[in-house]
Amino acid sequence: MLLYNAPVSGNCYKVRLLLAHLGIDYERHEVDVIDRSTRAELLGGVNPSLSVPTVVLDDGSPLAESNAILWYFSEGTPYMPEDRLARARVLQWLSFEQFSHQPYLALVRYWLSIAHTQVAKEKLDARKAPGYFALGAMESHLQRNSFFVDERYTIADIALYAYTHVAHEGEFDLSGFPAIREWLGRVDSQPGHVPIAA
Amino acid sequence: MLLYNAPVSGNCYKVRLLLAHLGIDYERHEVDVIDRSTRAELLGGVNPSLSVPTVVLDDGSPLAESNAILWYFSEGTPYMPEDRLARARVLQWLSFEQFSHQPYLALVRYWLSIAHTQVAKEKLDARKAPGYFALGAMESHLQRNSFFVDERYTIADIALYAYTHVAHEGEFDLSGFPAIREWLGRVDSQPGHVPIAA
Repeated sequence: MLLYNAPVSGNCYKVRLLLAHLGIDYERHEVDVIDRSTRAELLGGVNPSLSVPTVVLDDGSPLAESNAILWYFSEGTPYMPEDRLARARVLQWLSFEQFSHQPYLALVRYWLSIAHTQVAKEKLDARKAPGYFALGAMESHLQRNSFFVDERYTIADIALYAYTHVAHEGEFDLSGFPAIREWLGRVDSQPGHVPIAA
Repeated sequence: MLLYNAPVSGNCYKVRLLLAHLGIDYERHEVDVIDRSTRAELLGGVNPSLSVPTVVLDDGSPLAESNAILWYFSEGTPYMPEDRLARARVLQWLSFEQFSHQPYLALVRYWLSIAHTQVAKEKLDARKAPGYFALGAMESHLQRNSFFVDERYTIADIALYAYTHVAHEGEFDLSGFPAIREWLGRVDSQPGHVPIAA
């Protein structure tokens, strides 16, 4: 299997983390997250939205979007519940991450620690406020639950861990979110865990 | 079952459209998309991210995020493929819609036709360009396929139809996207189809 991968991308890290837990080997094709000029040539044939991660399975089938790749590889493993409502809850948190968390925490991290973009304070604040709102929703859930779904480590935790554990690279302060910090520790200690730089 | 619903919201319409196809009855609790001041009181107990659609199932279990709700109700029905890779492809397009389509097409429609917000041309253009890129990715796929996954109507089509069929309310011009326009017609003609205003 081939993974079109960007080492710093949290979305790619989600896939690498699950594949590490599952012991699945794959080849990496590294893709730049700053210079996107070669993406159409590299990815046009396999993913019309030109995003990473994209995988090409051993039979040549492409599959894109981190949530879809996580879902595909976790079906039938301990990282995905079997119960129908619990599976839908996993997808609820995957969707929350992509829609209400990633556009704020990941984008601010990209500006401040990856692309080193000069960003006006007003533009930064406009992304930080909903980022803190998303962290508040996570904190509220984790005050009553050890993991996001079914009191067990699933791809919902993998997805939310990716950009939360590097929130400080976007200058988000987690000191007011003790339940999140404890949960980050629980994820770190899962068997087979690998860091984002692995 | 109870649906926290906003009539103009494409995300809520996705759920209403699937439930109409499936003939599932439910009660609606209407939620304002402009004045959000009552959301914490209304939704805080069932969905910490305070978003609609949120459903409360007959046993009292809440479920949020349009993709998760579509997934839950479509499992085991003709609107969800059975094959593992095809299911992941459905999720690929659901994720594409939430991440690369909805933040542009839906937001511009919200500004121009729902909230009637005064928006600077530069800010509008910054959302219209990636919106047209997303339409281009859809067009490219639909030039070779009748539907998004497996040549059949699934929740991937329902999800992408919701904000694409009202793209003109955000002043997106679909005249250069003939494959999208033909696909919109195929979705319109599915048995049990209901319009967004239903």
